[in-house]
Amino acid sequence: MRFTSEQRLDDGVLEREFTLGDIPGILWTSGSAPAPLILIGHNGGLHKRESRLVARARHYAARYGHAVAAIDHPGHGDRPRSAAGEQARADLRRAMAAGEPVDGILESFVAPLVDTAVPEWRTTLDALLSLPEIGGPVGYSGMTAVGIRLAAAEPRISAAGFFAGGYVPRAQREEARQVTVPVLFLLQWDDEGNDRQRALDLFDAFGTEEKTLHANMGGHAGTPWFEVDDGARFFARHLK
Amino acid sequence: MRFTSEQRLDDGVLEREFTLGDIPGILWTSGSAPAPLILIGHNGGLHKRESRLVARARHYAARYGHAVAAIDHPGHGDRPRSAAGEQARADLRRAMAAGEPVDGILESFVAPLVDTAVPEWRTTLDALLSLPEIGGPVGYSGMTAVGIRLAAAEPRISAAGFFAGGYVPRAQREEARQVTVPVLFLLQWDDEGNDRQRALDLFDAFGTEEKTLHANMGGHAGTPWFEVDDGARFFARHLK
Repeated sequence: MRFTSEQRLDDGVLEREFTLGDIPGILWTSGSAPAPLILIGHNGGLHKRESRLVARARHYAARYGHAVAAIDHPGHGDRPRSAAGEQARADLRRAMAAGEPVDGILESFVAPLVDTAVPEWRTTLDALLSLPEIGGPVGYSGMTAVGIRLAAAEPRISAAGFFAGGYVPRAQREEARQVTVPVLFLLQWDDEGNDRQRALDLFDAFGTEEKTLHANMGGHAGTPWFEVDDGARFFARHLK
Repeated sequence: MRFTSEQRLDDGVLEREFTLGDIPGILWTSGSAPAPLILIGHNGGLHKRESRLVARARHYAARYGHAVAAIDHPGHGDRPRSAAGEQARADLRRAMAAGEPVDGILESFVAPLVDTAVPEWRTTLDALLSLPEIGGPVGYSGMTAVGIRLAAAEPRISAAGFFAGGYVPRAQREEARQVTVPVLFLLQWDDEGNDRQRALDLFDAFGTEEKTLHANMGGHAGTPWFEVDDGARFFARHLK
């Protein structure tokens, strides 16, 4: 793991960019004592520098003392696009514009993303946990599809916050039963691109007995800010 | 309003019993400065002294500085039972034991309870708001059926937390559309006596755009304690 930039932000948070092999990432920390770590997963077309992601990461670090990390997965953010990925995005736009079903297209590019992203998260986790300022335990917060596989496969994940806005491949809908750590599941009640009943079924499927659903009004991007604090308190309860 | 007892509890909260005409109640306060008021509504067979209700009221007062009040409705708690009410309870027990539908029986005694409880809450509110240590604004927290009517009819209610475990009469399922204050709706995912889909439909029906659903695992009485704090923070956001 190589740190490529470092700056102290006005909220006192230290923001460092890093690379780990091909993986580019950012680490936000607010102190030198070993802190719990939150991995923020982002989805689809987003970038680890997306403004709401950064605001959330800095808030967790500044206000709650968590260490927070985000990485760009293959074909996302700072990493080169693949021809197959670009084709799938074009197919998706065309199908959405035509009002055609999109599940098949989403399955074709989210499922491979999960397959590549989860090993990269585990490699990143190895490197992050070797830093003296990160003590664990570890939580995951963000994109559901990658998070389900990671929480099911990686015993160092102690709690998971999932955002229900985003396609969840068939395999992860099954793997949800293997998620046995505490879960906070965040749903936008009128998310344009996501079926509400499918999200409620997924909540029902998680294998843990300690799961909470938070649903708020509005569309995909309308999650109220107070959910960031609710998420931080969820992690504070479970990352001890 | 006549105070009939007063004691300072070990958490510093002042607990006063009162009567207002036929209505017996309890008021919990933690200071002399005008505080927001939370009305705690309880249901069915419960008493204003029920242990979880009292723990919640004292926590709101001690930790968040809210004034909190609970009253016993006609036929509940300290008040005389009616023959009709006792008959309905006996019918309910018999129907439940026989595995028969209970909606009709519940409708027959919850609907009249709403009709009598709401005017009593409004009278109680008049009296409480005349006390110097209560400044408003006012929130309602508890039984859904009474709370919907109260929040729809009473402009002094600024936010409402509803517990989805309990029968909601047909009239209140309609009146839910008239609830336009912020709502926090608390659902036990596997509540034995309450239909999950009906609860989700009710959440969908509330007329406010500022509503949040919190669902947790387990049965009717299994609401986790952290929801008490979540509720307090919901009120702190809206009772200003």
